[in-house]
Amino acid sequence: MSQRKLKIGCAGLGRMGARHALNFANRTPRADLVAAFTPDEKEKVWAATALPDVTIYTDYDEMLKHPGLEAVVVATVTTMHAEHAIKAIKANKHVLCEKPLSTSVEISQSVVDAAAQKPELKVMCGFSRRFDASYRQAWERMDSGAIGKPSVFRSQTCDKLDPSGFFVAYAEFSGGIFVDCNIHDIDLALWYFGQDSVIKSVTAIGITAVQPDLRKHKDVDNGVGIIEFWGDKIAYLYSSRMMAAGQHDMTEIIGTEGKLTVNANPISTLVEMHEPQGIRREIPPDYYGRFEYAFVTEANEFAAACLDNTKLPFKLQGAVQAVQIGCALQESLNSGKKINFDESGRRIEESKL
Amino acid sequence: MSQRKLKIGCAGLGRMGARHALNFANRTPRADLVAAFTPDEKEKVWAATALPDVTIYTDYDEMLKHPGLEAVVVATVTTMHAEHAIKAIKANKHVLCEKPLSTSVEISQSVVDAAAQKPELKVMCGFSRRFDASYRQAWERMDSGAIGKPSVFRSQTCDKLDPSGFFVAYAEFSGGIFVDCNIHDIDLALWYFGQDSVIKSVTAIGITAVQPDLRKHKDVDNGVGIIEFWGDKIAYLYSSRMMAAGQHDMTEIIGTEGKLTVNANPISTLVEMHEPQGIRREIPPDYYGRFEYAFVTEANEFAAACLDNTKLPFKLQGAVQAVQIGCALQESLNSGKKINFDESGRRIEESKL
Amino acid sequence: MSQRKLKIGCAGLGRMGARHALNFANRTPRADLVAAFTPDEKEKVWAATALPDVTIYTDYDEMLKHPGLEAVVVATVTTMHAEHAIKAIKANKHVLCEKPLSTSVEISQSVVDAAAQKPELKVMCGFSRRFDASYRQAWERMDSGAIGKPSVFRSQTCDKLDPSGFFVAYAEFSGGIFVDCNIHDIDLALWYFGQDSVIKSVTAIGITAVQPDLRKHKDVDNGVGIIEFWGDKIAYLYSSRMMAAGQHDMTEIIGTEGKLTVNANPISTLVEMHEPQGIRREIPPDYYGRFEYAFVTEANEFAAACLDNTKLPFKLQGAVQAVQIGCALQESLNSGKKINFDESGRRIEESKL
Amino acid sequence: MSQRKLKIGCAGLGRMGARHALNFANRTPRADLVAAFTPDEKEKVWAATALPDVTIYTDYDEMLKHPGLEAVVVATVTTMHAEHAIKAIKANKHVLCEKPLSTSVEISQSVVDAAAQKPELKVMCGFSRRFDASYRQAWERMDSGAIGKPSVFRSQTCDKLDPSGFFVAYAEFSGGIFVDCNIHDIDLALWYFGQDSVIKSVTAIGITAVQPDLRKHKDVDNGVGIIEFWGDKIAYLYSSRMMAAGQHDMTEIIGTEGKLTVNANPISTLVEMHEPQGIRREIPPDYYGRFEYAFVTEANEFAAACLDNTKLPFKLQGAVQAVQIGCALQESLNSGKKINFDESGRRIEESKL
Repeated sequence: MSQRKLKIGCAGLGRMGARHALNFANRTPRADLVAAFTPDEKEKVWAATALPDVTIYTDYDEMLKHPGLEAVVVATVTTMHAEHAIKAIKANKHVLCEKPLSTSVEISQSVVDAAAQKPELKVMCGFSRRFDASYRQAWERMDSGAIGKPSVFRSQTCDKLDPSGFFVAYAEFSGGIFVDCNIHDIDLALWYFGQDSVIKSVTAIGITAVQPDLRKHKDVDNGVGIIEFWGDKIAYLYSSRMMAAGQHDMTEIIGTEGKLTVNANPISTLVEMHEPQGIRREIPPDYYGRFEYAFVTEANEFAAACLDNTKLPFKLQGAVQAVQIGCALQESLNSGKKINFDESGRRIEESKL
Repeated sequence: MSQRKLKIGCAGLGRMGARHALNFANRTPRADLVAAFTPDEKEKVWAATALPDVTIYTDYDEMLKHPGLEAVVVATVTTMHAEHAIKAIKANKHVLCEKPLSTSVEISQSVVDAAAQKPELKVMCGFSRRFDASYRQAWERMDSGAIGKPSVFRSQTCDKLDPSGFFVAYAEFSGGIFVDCNIHDIDLALWYFGQDSVIKSVTAIGITAVQPDLRKHKDVDNGVGIIEFWGDKIAYLYSSRMMAAGQHDMTEIIGTEGKLTVNANPISTLVEMHEPQGIRREIPPDYYGRFEYAFVTEANEFAAACLDNTKLPFKLQGAVQAVQIGCALQESLNSGKKINFDESGRRIEESKL
Repeated sequence: MSQRKLKIGCAGLGRMGARHALNFANRTPRADLVAAFTPDEKEKVWAATALPDVTIYTDYDEMLKHPGLEAVVVATVTTMHAEHAIKAIKANKHVLCEKPLSTSVEISQSVVDAAAQKPELKVMCGFSRRFDASYRQAWERMDSGAIGKPSVFRSQTCDKLDPSGFFVAYAEFSGGIFVDCNIHDIDLALWYFGQDSVIKSVTAIGITAVQPDLRKHKDVDNGVGIIEFWGDKIAYLYSSRMMAAGQHDMTEIIGTEGKLTVNANPISTLVEMHEPQGIRREIPPDYYGRFEYAFVTEANEFAAACLDNTKLPFKLQGAVQAVQIGCALQESLNSGKKINFDESGRRIEESKL
Repeated sequence: MSQRKLKIGCAGLGRMGARHALNFANRTPRADLVAAFTPDEKEKVWAATALPDVTIYTDYDEMLKHPGLEAVVVATVTTMHAEHAIKAIKANKHVLCEKPLSTSVEISQSVVDAAAQKPELKVMCGFSRRFDASYRQAWERMDSGAIGKPSVFRSQTCDKLDPSGFFVAYAEFSGGIFVDCNIHDIDLALWYFGQDSVIKSVTAIGITAVQPDLRKHKDVDNGVGIIEFWGDKIAYLYSSRMMAAGQHDMTEIIGTEGKLTVNANPISTLVEMHEPQGIRREIPPDYYGRFEYAFVTEANEFAAACLDNTKLPFKLQGAVQAVQIGCALQESLNSGKKINFDESGRRIEESKL
């Protein structure tokens, strides 16, 4: 093990940026958080005490010039992910970019293209569930042949109801529920079914049960989608923004000889409360409550891959595939039509059906 | 409570017929099983010891003439359900008919039409889950407003893998997986969302993961379907014939203020086994293992409704609706196309889209 | 299978008597409830509608003379169990006697002695858990060697809090919590460890957490006891009258190679409720909610043993052993002393220790 | 928050010492592991790569002289805990000492006495469960009054069977199963019932089900104990060294108005495996698999208390109380006698009973 530490900077100190910054600063022994970028005054104040040894920049380009900087974690607003990632790549920095690279397939691809120019760099999209102990155990079981051939995949990303209306404003730039929430489930489907799976069709349906204003942004608060793959494989997905109890992300991988479930029984701690109304348990309030340790593992493994020049656990191109499928689902939701693809994965125009 | 007992006959003594016969004979205090019909020699031999006080007929019409017979439970092969039900109705017998009335919408409707001619008779389609204690508790919670407005419904009917190939032959007459298995889930959707729900679209996808020969009968062994209802409601369904562990039928009703799950954690008994490989529990091997007591309740409530001339818990017309939706899903599966309906529930021809 | 039905009478139509009567009348195909005894006016009124075909007696001796009566289920108050059982035996009736035979070891033994005079009769003490599907599955697993040598046994009988104070009055005749509640757990220990297990010591401790007046009757509302058996076996027990959520009876059988749990995760139905406070499930409110089907099985198997002259599933002598151990625990609770027994099971006087 | 880091040394790099060293080195942002002591050659080799920036000493006294050293975590063999802790205290170092301080009450007390001489130092016994998120949530619920008055406490520490015979040799110095395993449960009882709880009696029973040779060291592989407290409180405990499935430590706190369970449903990850034999989940193989994050929290909170001069979460004296009770249970196990205490907690000689 190299004793050297990876000098990393964090772009963005908002909700997720602050978590990445703290994880690299305090919970990643092989990394030194040396710099951070934020244009936000409040975040700067926060950083002054929370990140005492870190140089704070209000100009992203200046941060890239921080002496000795080797890597950047991009956690700015989604609309800036691609630009910040590409600039970092061009400046020869390893990049861990929050998902999605972009809500646009083309822009996402431009990040991959930039990375392809610098094969010596580690460029990864932050699909945090890939680092979760439960998802990994399920994958290893499947990979060992324990469930036969994986054939049907069900996965959901369900957020606790936020009555503030935050999601309506957020929907303007999120790319929609299938791109914002289900992108994780799509990435998991590609992981469990294989990154070379070829899509055959997508269909999506959705409703606005609690936030009718989402329709302004062509979005919904509950969506159901089916992704058909060539070779007898189906993934079906659900996303919701109105769970009462908390975050409930769960996945099933159904094979010809067995089934694996991840988080069919959500819990936050190992406590159960026996009360006059029955037995009660709590569940995590948000995705970070569910995936905190996955983000820590992500930071540690990314640092190790950069320092040791080892392979990242998954390919950047998958991030484009996932956005592509997410956008197709969102399109199907809004057009009301099923979208078909040929065996090479090319879209079939409706007139040709 | 009337001390009189309902004189009932059982048509069919196959797998499910034998169970109905025993339930009416032994576990329905207010009923007397007086007659049974079976053309099958083995079943007759079985009946001689298992149903000692019951007159066995090899001619259905003869059984209908059994002195004092008041009601018939129809549990013959699916293709005979409608004919036997209609004959019984015409002979002024109450009828409990196994699901489905028929795999054809038109024939199903003909049973409803026959029943409409005899409003004094109780005619019910045996949707057993309607009598299950768990489904009823969930319905009462929902009906009390506990989950706000029910908006998304997920339900699955998943059978244990039967490697004998039985299902291939069976598929010739079953109507297909969406009619045979998911009909229960469709009926539940209509129960929880309301019998007056109007369908907006259906889409279905399926694969043959373990029984490729099912394609001969235009069927699959794993199917996923989405039913969209007018008024912002979605039901999405899964059916499978390849579960490793046993029967796993489960349902979620997701409302704007909470969620109810039925059988998210399947068990057969309250035993858990702590073994070197971990903690293990068993689940029921088949639907009767899961729903045995629902069938007993069904028999008892049907007998009571006949004797006391009280309302049946649900309307016969729903059985036609369920077949209609099941057939539309099966059609979508085979055509690869989404099927749309207007606000009155009438199908929209594709050319008009 | 004999087509003949067992003519049975029910002594006592109180809480448990009414349930036995209904079970023999309606849910035991091979039995006919022909007679019942109750001195209580309200119970007679109830019986007039609930048990329409049953002759009601206000004199127990008269009931025993009911023409053709073959068997009696004794469910009168505990203090009358032995007298009623012995009278029935002397009148040549099979007997199913509710537990305990008596809270006195000597009186309990007198029932066994009476039964020994009539070996042709079936005389059983109603340890309902012996007929529970979960306890039976656990026993079969253990008996198959799946957990090696059973060595440690933990079992609890825990009632929902009844704030009415009922248990204070009840404690005057119940024999105390170890005789009234834990007698089931003691019987289970003897079942799983073997009826020939020889007791080595007992120790018990208890508190009055919610009903201090129980001390008047030398009783407690929460008791913990340890039973040591010769041959390296331990049973430890808990009983409580103050559970918030409902009845929670559970058992663990711990062997050298595995462990079996019965009802570690109590549920009443398969419904889970996702609410703003978390995920909630309900549990049965009382022992009948938990063991209803065990009582039905008990009735059916007792009837079958009487009709077919087959062996009962367990020996009557065990009912004396269980009371003996329960009384020793209750004595230890009140004396504050451990009670020791030699290898033949004879009590060792303290002065000889 | 101070930016200064606590300079800490780790005494012992065995199983638990290595974990403490890594936790302080890599997972405690406010601490710097600067020194470690081990007399073991293999451990030194391990440290050379695993702890690259740490000075390794083979003489404990030398380590205490490490320049700037402020604190020591004592994780040497149990028999050396007290000596090493006292030396560190005398050298003005804060001390986190692994449990137990000693298996002797007197020696344990000598550590407390030494600490009392240096009130400016933070001296803590490593009761890891105090830092576990689940135990803390349970405590907060109880402290908020949610379960009324806590009255009965059940807790178990159960290790996976280790067929190597390791525990026989280990038992020579472990103090016995009640001191080695149940000390955690005893500490929890004192935490939940209050550190000022006064013991009234203890009774213990045990068997050697898998390791008969343990008797040589007056120990057992399965033990059950009851601790009675003045003021109507009972704790009953179980410990075992023969679990098949893995580590299963669990606790119940039963109050007059509710009950809290911790780890009634053990799991290692959120994966469930649906297999032909049923549904299976795995559980942690050992206590570190269960409590890893508690140890990390312990390290972080200890460092913070030293740096910020804030109160430790519990008092050192409790570690003596816990050993005292553990030793009394072990004595009762071996003498076969119940041990009684008066209301001031003083032992009552048997002759005076």
